[in-house]
Amino acid sequence: METREISKAVIARLPRYYRYLGELMESGVDRISSNELSRRMNVTASQIRQDLNNFGGFGQQGYGYNIKYLYSEIAKILGIDRQHNLIIIGSGNLGQALANYANFEKRGFLIKGMFDINPRLIGLVVRGIEIRGVEDLETFIKENEVQMAALTIPKTKAPEIADRLVNAGIKGIWNFAHVDLQVPDDVVVENVHLSESLMRLSYRVCNIQEEKKKKRS
Amino acid sequence: METREISKAVIARLPRYYRYLGELMESGVDRISSNELSRRMNVTASQIRQDLNNFGGFGQQGYGYNIKYLYSEIAKILGIDRQHNLIIIGSGNLGQALANYANFEKRGFLIKGMFDINPRLIGLVVRGIEIRGVEDLETFIKENEVQMAALTIPKTKAPEIADRLVNAGIKGIWNFAHVDLQVPDDVVVENVHLSESLMRLSYRVCNIQEEKKKKRS
Repeated sequence: METREISKAVIARLPRYYRYLGELMESGVDRISSNELSRRMNVTASQIRQDLNNFGGFGQQGYGYNIKYLYSEIAKILGIDRQHNLIIIGSGNLGQALANYANFEKRGFLIKGMFDINPRLIGLVVRGIEIRGVEDLETFIKENEVQMAALTIPKTKAPEIADRLVNAGIKGIWNFAHVDLQVPDDVVVENVHLSESLMRLSYRVCNIQEEKKKKRS
Repeated sequence: METREISKAVIARLPRYYRYLGELMESGVDRISSNELSRRMNVTASQIRQDLNNFGGFGQQGYGYNIKYLYSEIAKILGIDRQHNLIIIGSGNLGQALANYANFEKRGFLIKGMFDINPRLIGLVVRGIEIRGVEDLETFIKENEVQMAALTIPKTKAPEIADRLVNAGIKGIWNFAHVDLQVPDDVVVENVHLSESLMRLSYRVCNIQEEKKKKRS
């Protein structure tokens, strides 16, 4: 299949399709209609048809989608059909939580190393991965062909470490530090700002209450 | 200030404004122009003026925004000017990482309790919070007026626990389990699906490489 231009909005929805298709495969389902997928995913069937038509019209009328094929096509587009070598910088609770997600490996993300500056953590082993000091960072990245790094360190340290990562050849930073990193054009940063997510939850909870108050009065 | 209709897109940007304004306050800055804020946040000045005009035109020509005022107005809108009682269900690495974020408390999110089903974790104390068994969940929520719960448990357990939370009166679920929860209309779910975030990173890293290949050929 040749790669087409797929809109950003569709790309953003692909991981969710991927998850549902994976669960269907696990439960032994081969084919699914857009209507059935619509019911499960709580998305309109026409949205599903529009989205999945991007991958060539392999949903046939009365026949449904071939789950395995769709799953593998989405994997190719997301780049999770190949191996990505990943390191985790910051081996506290959050870094260890990431290291313990076996699911990442199933999707091709191989955690090659963990790093920290805390001498009490250095030398500990998490799921077979030894925690190292950050002085070894550059050598380790080169020797292990690491492309991606998760940053689970305080925001004060993050910009300096990000610069070192970029200079050592890292192409993707999964940034949990609560700061916007400045990187060159050929490096991408995917932010996970947990406190912003919590504020969105707060906003939505408060607005439900406002709406209920209005309804009552 | 009366509450106006503010678009979803603006709301989604507010936590980031809040973070920058908070950092400016911490470094002792009182006022800032839209141009200066634009430079720092890497957003156009006209976007900033449009967004912040939603809160009444308190950016004055040649005078700039009153940071403290803006900060507190945004806090009101996000609902972080008041206290929210929160519990964490799932006290593994991720749950403990959340419990250790002192910043959440600064924003009014008070972690009242932690829960787990693992007997080896029950009884442990994380930052002064004792980990309890889930059998106490309903009583605890009522006695402590808990409104929000973070779910850091495997996806297989999440739907059942979510039902119990909803029945016990929880209004907001901060869901880290990799499953879409079904809740009534007066309950909100804010998802943090880490593996979907990692797939987006993968997609973006792969596409940078594609683009570079195209440029070279």
